[in-house]
Amino acid sequence: MKKETIYVTGGAGFVGSNLCEKLLLLKYKVVALDNFKTGRKFFLKKCLQNSNFQIKKLDLKNKKKLISAIKPNSVIFHLSANADLQFGIDNRLIDIKENIQVTHNILEACIKKKIKKIIFSSTGSVYGEANLYPTPENYKYPIQTSLYANSKNCCEGMITTYSKYFNLNYTIFRFVSVLGQKYTHGHVKDFCKKLIKNKKEIKIFGNGKQKKSYIHVDDCVNALILSIKNKKFDKEIFNLGTEDWITVNQSLNLICKILKLKPKVIREEKKRSGWPGDNPKILLSTNKIKKLGWKTKKNIKESIKDTVEYLISNPFLLK
Amino acid sequence: MKKETIYVTGGAGFVGSNLCEKLLLLKYKVVALDNFKTGRKFFLKKCLQNSNFQIKKLDLKNKKKLISAIKPNSVIFHLSANADLQFGIDNRLIDIKENIQVTHNILEACIKKKIKKIIFSSTGSVYGEANLYPTPENYKYPIQTSLYANSKNCCEGMITTYSKYFNLNYTIFRFVSVLGQKYTHGHVKDFCKKLIKNKKEIKIFGNGKQKKSYIHVDDCVNALILSIKNKKFDKEIFNLGTEDWITVNQSLNLICKILKLKPKVIREEKKRSGWPGDNPKILLSTNKIKKLGWKTKKNIKESIKDTVEYLISNPFLLK
Repeated sequence: MKKETIYVTGGAGFVGSNLCEKLLLLKYKVVALDNFKTGRKFFLKKCLQNSNFQIKKLDLKNKKKLISAIKPNSVIFHLSANADLQFGIDNRLIDIKENIQVTHNILEACIKKKIKKIIFSSTGSVYGEANLYPTPENYKYPIQTSLYANSKNCCEGMITTYSKYFNLNYTIFRFVSVLGQKYTHGHVKDFCKKLIKNKKEIKIFGNGKQKKSYIHVDDCVNALILSIKNKKFDKEIFNLGTEDWITVNQSLNLICKILKLKPKVIREEKKRSGWPGDNPKILLSTNKIKKLGWKTKKNIKESIKDTVEYLISNPFLLK
Repeated sequence: MKKETIYVTGGAGFVGSNLCEKLLLLKYKVVALDNFKTGRKFFLKKCLQNSNFQIKKLDLKNKKKLISAIKPNSVIFHLSANADLQFGIDNRLIDIKENIQVTHNILEACIKKKIKKIIFSSTGSVYGEANLYPTPENYKYPIQTSLYANSKNCCEGMITTYSKYFNLNYTIFRFVSVLGQKYTHGHVKDFCKKLIKNKKEIKIFGNGKQKKSYIHVDDCVNALILSIKNKKFDKEIFNLGTEDWITVNQSLNLICKILKLKPKVIREEKKRSGWPGDNPKILLSTNKIKKLGWKTKKNIKESIKDTVEYLISNPFLLK
């Protein structure tokens, strides 16, 4: 597929900017689309030195502008999304606007511009509170517990339907939380931010027993890129995560060790999840994608270490 | 729950108007909300003679007007939806607007008006092309194949999430196609309409081997009403259908027999489904709701007969 232009929505975001860098290394022509609401030009510093790279500032909710921004016969990595999960209970319309409506617009562009393939970042939270871990892709009918995950589930369904209607090619990835270089939000940032402000004491959401899997962004990007190289990824849905999981307490201990701090930890002992809609457990089965040759290079502890070190060396990200 | 006002969205529609009639018989105060896009005042003739009944013409997409139309502490049957399934491939935004956004508005009203319970009409099509018949509620993770079913699946997820966030009470029903008095759209109408126009020949969508389950509206309404009487329906999802299914060919034969016609039948022999997104097979397991005391009174053949006779005695519905 080397000749097509590759569009990356949310291209200035965490996963998007890492993906753009890697695609450019592989000599693809890359266009990052971003509204710069949470994306940062800073993350694209390396990309901007490459003549195969372009940024287009665009609100993807504007269907007309979106469609006219995209060249026929290209490939789209659709990674942009609202991802303010903690505030889902207060901001109950944003996932419809930023995730469902935007994905509708992207799909319309796919049809009108005869896009060769769309690759979509969904979430491991689509399984709701599963009671099978690791959770496989064909796990039983999920009961949704967050508006974010539900919107991603809806986008998945739009993609498979457009594929059925128009023979659109796709790969859907259900990510666990991603860590690594250019990381912008999540518990590692929250903890580092709090610990820098107050070295002696830290309050955490929930009882700390929430147990989750995380993936390093490099491993995530490798999977994304495999999906445009290997035809066996076509019209398939894959979980994306590591084989291990870690509790919030363990993660906090590790972060404190890296930062050489020993704060008093204040927990919400009666809460088994961090916020409404937060799944207390996430561990995905990755057997399906491993059979196609993908494997992780970094485990969770290495990923956390990498993330903390990145945040410390870019302290403005903690503001 | 007899003292609360009961709101029925889509109250002038097929299932809605039948439900309003039955609720009034049971002495509830009923308010039908409808935009009269496909709903008909004609269906509410009986209801309008009852002083416990009110109609409010309302576009449910107008969140402010919707919220102010609803009294606190009431119950909402949310039945309104776009249901133009055949044209899903052409009209790809309507399900987001009429189903997802409207359900968001309804849920906001539920929170703001402390609604006691929302009862939602989803569809048996949410299972996509299942490969287990009859399909149970906890069947494996579905791959969506129509924008309509996907939007209903999204609404289900919004409802379960609001329930998680705000402890909202709900019952979700996944209907097969409904037949009976006040029937407005579907294959029985299409066939009758075509046969009245041309008694000698009829063209049908697909090869006629599509095999589906149907339910009579009286049985459907009985299930809806049970859900506000029996606490075991609270926060649960139920399939709603009959135990039998029928092919399109068999259904057409029966309709011709009732109409005393013997037309030549022209099929699309190579098409296993009627239109893009049409599931060629639907049969739902109803064990879960049957355990709570519900059962069907009419089988599919009786339901088809009832529907054809209703359409013939109200010929303007065939125009």
